[in-house]
Amino acid sequence: MSERKISQAVISRLPRYLRYLGDLKDEGVERISSHDLSVRMHVTASQIRQDFNHFGGFGQQGYGYNVVYLYDEIGKILGLDHKHTMVIIGAGNLGQALANYMNFEKRGFLILGIYDKDPALIGKQVRNLEIEDISGAADFIRKNNIEIAVLTLPKAGATSVIGDIVNSGIKAIWNFAHVDLDLPDDIIVENVHLSESLMKLSYKLTSADGTERIN
Amino acid sequence: MSERKISQAVISRLPRYLRYLGDLKDEGVERISSHDLSVRMHVTASQIRQDFNHFGGFGQQGYGYNVVYLYDEIGKILGLDHKHTMVIIGAGNLGQALANYMNFEKRGFLILGIYDKDPALIGKQVRNLEIEDISGAADFIRKNNIEIAVLTLPKAGATSVIGDIVNSGIKAIWNFAHVDLDLPDDIIVENVHLSESLMKLSYKLTSADGTERIN
Repeated sequence: MSERKISQAVISRLPRYLRYLGDLKDEGVERISSHDLSVRMHVTASQIRQDFNHFGGFGQQGYGYNVVYLYDEIGKILGLDHKHTMVIIGAGNLGQALANYMNFEKRGFLILGIYDKDPALIGKQVRNLEIEDISGAADFIRKNNIEIAVLTLPKAGATSVIGDIVNSGIKAIWNFAHVDLDLPDDIIVENVHLSESLMKLSYKLTSADGTERIN
Repeated sequence: MSERKISQAVISRLPRYLRYLGDLKDEGVERISSHDLSVRMHVTASQIRQDFNHFGGFGQQGYGYNVVYLYDEIGKILGLDHKHTMVIIGAGNLGQALANYMNFEKRGFLILGIYDKDPALIGKQVRNLEIEDISGAADFIRKNNIEIAVLTLPKAGATSVIGDIVNSGIKAIWNFAHVDLDLPDDIIVENVHLSESLMKLSYKLTSADGTERIN
């Protein structure tokens, strides 16, 4: 597959396609046209066709896409056809919430460890895992070829721990810490900055109040 | 202030500026040039100047921006100079984690209620709040002029509860549910789709494995 030139914008839309196709699958719909899908998703049919053409078009016939096939193919592109291993670094409220979230496991994202430096947390059970001392995290990643580290630490903690994690051979970081990580090019980073999202909402609220609504 | 034409891209960068300016403030830096700020933030000085010019430029002199002034002004644009009221709809792991997250309050986002429909959760204490029956949420929003509803419910729950919330006079929804909300135009929505973020990470991981790294 020649995926070389696929833009971030296209990639960003794939999970949403997958979500809608999953719903269609659950409803027992076997085929759907780009037009009908576009109406459901509030996008244009031409955008759908353009997006899908990056991946060979998924064999739309006159009577539409095969839902199960399309769902599976997009899942493969997103790497959901095989398991991914993760550890959570930072067992505060958010770290524990993510550890408890069953849907990640259903999607093949296996959480194999959860770490913190707080003695009050170490030893505590979170779902099927015991919170361990953060000093052992890098070694565990190395020995078990863990792919993804989920960083759910306060800023200060994140910067102090990141060196060890980088050197452990981790492949990707799912970063919830409020810090821009300065990482080697071969480590993938996906940021989730919750405060920044809330500030964007606050901005829209504030400009809406001034009757200068920006959307 | 003529903010009418400010693009989403510019707005999206404001929280990050604020974060760096907060760090500078904490370090006791009084003034910073666009060049020095650009080096820290790994963006170009010209982007910084362009972004700031949307808001009148913030009075950059030959010797740079006043850090505290710039921090405060960007905070005002983001609506952080006054309080915002929120309720959390869905008191599962994520809802509780958000309720426990003190930084929101420091920023002026006050969580005044947390709701669920699960009898096992109702009555439970989360920080200074007691989880209440979801049937009372809309009434509470109406009576207290709550601005923001945080939706941390599973998909099915979210679609069933959203009608009541919309009719309660809510101004904005911070949506963590895996569903695209179909809302009236005057309600602001900011989505945080955690699973979609994880899938994007998985995509990058998968394409990196195939040596076709896309970033």
